[in-house]
Amino acid sequence: MYGVGAMGSIIARMLTERGAEIVGAVGRSTIGKPLSEVTGIPNVTVTIEGDIEEVVQRTRPDLVVMTTASYMEDVKEGVLACLKHGANVISLAEENLYSWHTSPEDTAEIDAVAKEHGVTYTCSGHQDGYWVQLVATLMGTAHHIDEVRGRASWNVEDFGPELARDQQVGDTLEEFAEWLRGAERPPTFGRPTLHAVAAASGLTVVESSTATEPVLATEDTYCKALEMTVPAGKVLGFTDIDTVRTAEGPVLVLEMTGKVYVEGQADSNAWELKGEPDLDLENQVLPTHLTTCATLVNRVPQVLNAEPGYVSVAELPPLRFQPGNIADHLTAR
Amino acid sequence: MYGVGAMGSIIARMLTERGAEIVGAVGRSTIGKPLSEVTGIPNVTVTIEGDIEEVVQRTRPDLVVMTTASYMEDVKEGVLACLKHGANVISLAEENLYSWHTSPEDTAEIDAVAKEHGVTYTCSGHQDGYWVQLVATLMGTAHHIDEVRGRASWNVEDFGPELARDQQVGDTLEEFAEWLRGAERPPTFGRPTLHAVAAASGLTVVESSTATEPVLATEDTYCKALEMTVPAGKVLGFTDIDTVRTAEGPVLVLEMTGKVYVEGQADSNAWELKGEPDLDLENQVLPTHLTTCATLVNRVPQVLNAEPGYVSVAELPPLRFQPGNIADHLTAR
Repeated sequence: MYGVGAMGSIIARMLTERGAEIVGAVGRSTIGKPLSEVTGIPNVTVTIEGDIEEVVQRTRPDLVVMTTASYMEDVKEGVLACLKHGANVISLAEENLYSWHTSPEDTAEIDAVAKEHGVTYTCSGHQDGYWVQLVATLMGTAHHIDEVRGRASWNVEDFGPELARDQQVGDTLEEFAEWLRGAERPPTFGRPTLHAVAAASGLTVVESSTATEPVLATEDTYCKALEMTVPAGKVLGFTDIDTVRTAEGPVLVLEMTGKVYVEGQADSNAWELKGEPDLDLENQVLPTHLTTCATLVNRVPQVLNAEPGYVSVAELPPLRFQPGNIADHLTAR
Repeated sequence: MYGVGAMGSIIARMLTERGAEIVGAVGRSTIGKPLSEVTGIPNVTVTIEGDIEEVVQRTRPDLVVMTTASYMEDVKEGVLACLKHGANVISLAEENLYSWHTSPEDTAEIDAVAKEHGVTYTCSGHQDGYWVQLVATLMGTAHHIDEVRGRASWNVEDFGPELARDQQVGDTLEEFAEWLRGAERPPTFGRPTLHAVAAASGLTVVESSTATEPVLATEDTYCKALEMTVPAGKVLGFTDIDTVRTAEGPVLVLEMTGKVYVEGQADSNAWELKGEPDLDLENQVLPTHLTTCATLVNRVPQVLNAEPGYVSVAELPPLRFQPGNIADHLTAR
């Protein structure tokens, strides 16, 4: 376990329930503590350490589950350290869901090192199931596709004051526009997600763009995270609109909104397809933390069975429930 | 094209739009007519004939698209005739979505003949996309599954007076109960569908059962198909509830309702998963005729690429949009 925070702890528990043995754990603020104490899982005797390369070299795991960061630049060094010591790696790093377009050189380097050492690197999570596989499957019931448009949202209140400030909650429209002009924001998660949808569907990406639109309060709205009331007309958050154009014609769009929810609003995942025929898909129940962890765990046997290299979820077999123990699903590679 | 009715005509048009050449057509009531006249597709010069074996033997197609019937007993002879002359077959026969449990001997015979002649037999359609692949993908985001329950419906009004009478529209509850006790009904389509979900998810079927419940009118309801008003308390149709139990634990249920719709009701496809975590999935837009045809057409390259035998949709690669020409997606087999 490389990363033992909220996600790492849930994944560790699910993995042990599927018969996996945890042979090592690497953390940051919890170094020296027993993994059982930090994760709440009984029957693991591992103590959390600090140096991933040392732990992988000593424990020789089949798989490293990495839950430390979201972007290629923040995970690359750790991924390479694991791969070089013969460990497969599966991570939640959102960019790595499909990073051939956003970080082509680093992705190629990971791919080469993984192949050299006969192991794989894959990223999965909620995106894999709800924004890639369900959508690509829906597309498989269409004859012609003009556009596929997804709408997802998250509640600023769930992530504390820092993220609320990042979402510009409370800004005037003018302040928001000025911030947006000068903002050095990290890349959206929507872009690699749509790149994965394109790859899964045999579509060739020719252009990717992102637009950002503020969401304004239509009435005075209290923000718990910032302990303030956002007056009507001021910013509740914003929507990133990622658009990917393909050589074959279909346009893929994902609108991702992070804002202060008002009474009755909830996380959403809704997709519309325009083409022959028009289609749609919606999930009302979205326990994102658990679907993130369960999806990654269901990918584990497929990742261990895959040909070496950087293996995106666009190339894996269909996402499927893997009943029983992980070991029962392994084929000789 | 083996069958040139409503579905066969749409599929023929979609196939030609994907670069396929139609080399023969077999029908029943339209023998002797030009395929272009019956289907409305331009640029096909084929005339509809009556003997599938003769047409396959003469034209040597890569693939026969079969849209003639729903049950193994009604399609088996034609399927075998095609396979024996070296043609792959893809059909809409609902039972054959997964017929290893409902018709094991016939399925084994088809499997053996297909293997002997190096070709495949597969069934696809709306069920493949909406009742198998989307559902099995959703299951792939769960860690533990107690039950998966689908609810689908169709409107008796869409299928004329004969089917309305089959659905017992206008019966009293007593008449319905008496009919049900003595009814010799064909097997449900829900059962092979759930068998396909189980197979796709690595689950072992241990028991399959079907229950049938009447749907009663809560107010006087006019039935156009029968040109009569169904009084409150009498039957508007019924629900077949298929239940499949698996050795691994998950129970799969599909509730399929065919009834006279009242104002505001529409076809539905909604699935709920109980487990860790609870999940759901819904499609509001259901142009079933078009999704049936488009899904089958998207399966064509996968079926042509598959290893010989009876190949169910549980064994095929992920259902995906296949952009461009079918020929571009073919691998040497």
